[in-house]
Amino acid sequence: MSPYKTITTDEKSSDVVWHEASVTPAQRESNNGHQGAVLWFTGLSGSGKSTVANAVDKMLHDRGCKTYILDGDNVRHGLNKDLGFNDVDRIENIRRIGEVSNLFVDAGLIVCSAFISPFIADRAMVRALLPETRFIEVFIDTPISICEQRDPKGLYKKARAGEIKNFTGIDSAYEAPDAAEIHIKTAELSVEMCAKQVINYMLDNNIISAK
Amino acid sequence: MSPYKTITTDEKSSDVVWHEASVTPAQRESNNGHQGAVLWFTGLSGSGKSTVANAVDKMLHDRGCKTYILDGDNVRHGLNKDLGFNDVDRIENIRRIGEVSNLFVDAGLIVCSAFISPFIADRAMVRALLPETRFIEVFIDTPISICEQRDPKGLYKKARAGEIKNFTGIDSAYEAPDAAEIHIKTAELSVEMCAKQVINYMLDNNIISAK
Repeated sequence: MSPYKTITTDEKSSDVVWHEASVTPAQRESNNGHQGAVLWFTGLSGSGKSTVANAVDKMLHDRGCKTYILDGDNVRHGLNKDLGFNDVDRIENIRRIGEVSNLFVDAGLIVCSAFISPFIADRAMVRALLPETRFIEVFIDTPISICEQRDPKGLYKKARAGEIKNFTGIDSAYEAPDAAEIHIKTAELSVEMCAKQVINYMLDNNIISAK
Repeated sequence: MSPYKTITTDEKSSDVVWHEASVTPAQRESNNGHQGAVLWFTGLSGSGKSTVANAVDKMLHDRGCKTYILDGDNVRHGLNKDLGFNDVDRIENIRRIGEVSNLFVDAGLIVCSAFISPFIADRAMVRALLPETRFIEVFIDTPISICEQRDPKGLYKKARAGEIKNFTGIDSAYEAPDAAEIHIKTAELSVEMCAKQVINYMLDNNIISAK
């Protein structure tokens, strides 16, 4: 039984003469040699989501896995460039990223999505979009004091000065996951150790196989 | 020189400690053994877009290429389920599909997008989003009389009866491409021959290599 529930090809059978020629998600996975899945990195700004996601992506790529990263750079300037930062747009931002993640998983890829995604309800919405077991929540758990010290983009400074409103962790809530599949403490581990923690989870759960 | 122009990782260098670990589009393509590209199928309802796209997808998959299909089934019910069929929503529908195609191409896949996409301006918009040479327009050129005979979903019948308004080819224009990279006449060729025409184009242009 395929775990895929949201994307079916049944509906188009009426206009596809060669319907039997369609490549199934299972065939794409077999071709790739691993399962499709989304690693959904969530955490504060400066927590290390992108850094760990890039390290995981590199390790998976070096193993021959088919991967991709979705982050602010390739989504906010493209697909979601019409969206702002009010509540409605933030929900729509995460919804679209979830739908795109689902397409990538359907294509058999392992996609690393690295967005703050501070609200439990939004992350639950994305989880519900994905086939069961293919949504892997990765909580990048870094104390805000450390994030603020790092402040790679100077955003905390601006938020403290009141120049940015609704900044997660300052004047907008970050709702931590209570049952993330993977819980990473970047303040206590090297980037490499953090990435290996993710790889080990994927090995243990047969999403990828040992080299 | 990478042909990629719209997606860069430069902007995030400030918050990526291991920036050098990022996997580049060229590395993903090397790993896959072929270029990323979008085959943008355009044509009337019933022209055979999905049929030919599925046949091409199957042939590419059988060669070991990493592929995916974007069509109404997996886009309209997911990413674009908030959009209707008025002019503004139709443009936004194509824009999002173009942006998602761009992400797949950036990930190194060959994506077959099968949508009527009747307007020259909308297809030009998508072409402009993609790296040069990675947007391949595939005109599925089937006379409307044949499409209407096939009428796989009974939509022409409904349009003629006035039950569907703004139906492409009946009371809404289809603007045929004047310089599509691939021009396919489904009324004169078998589905297999149509698909091989696409494969041959990709071989001739070094998007894929001979087995």
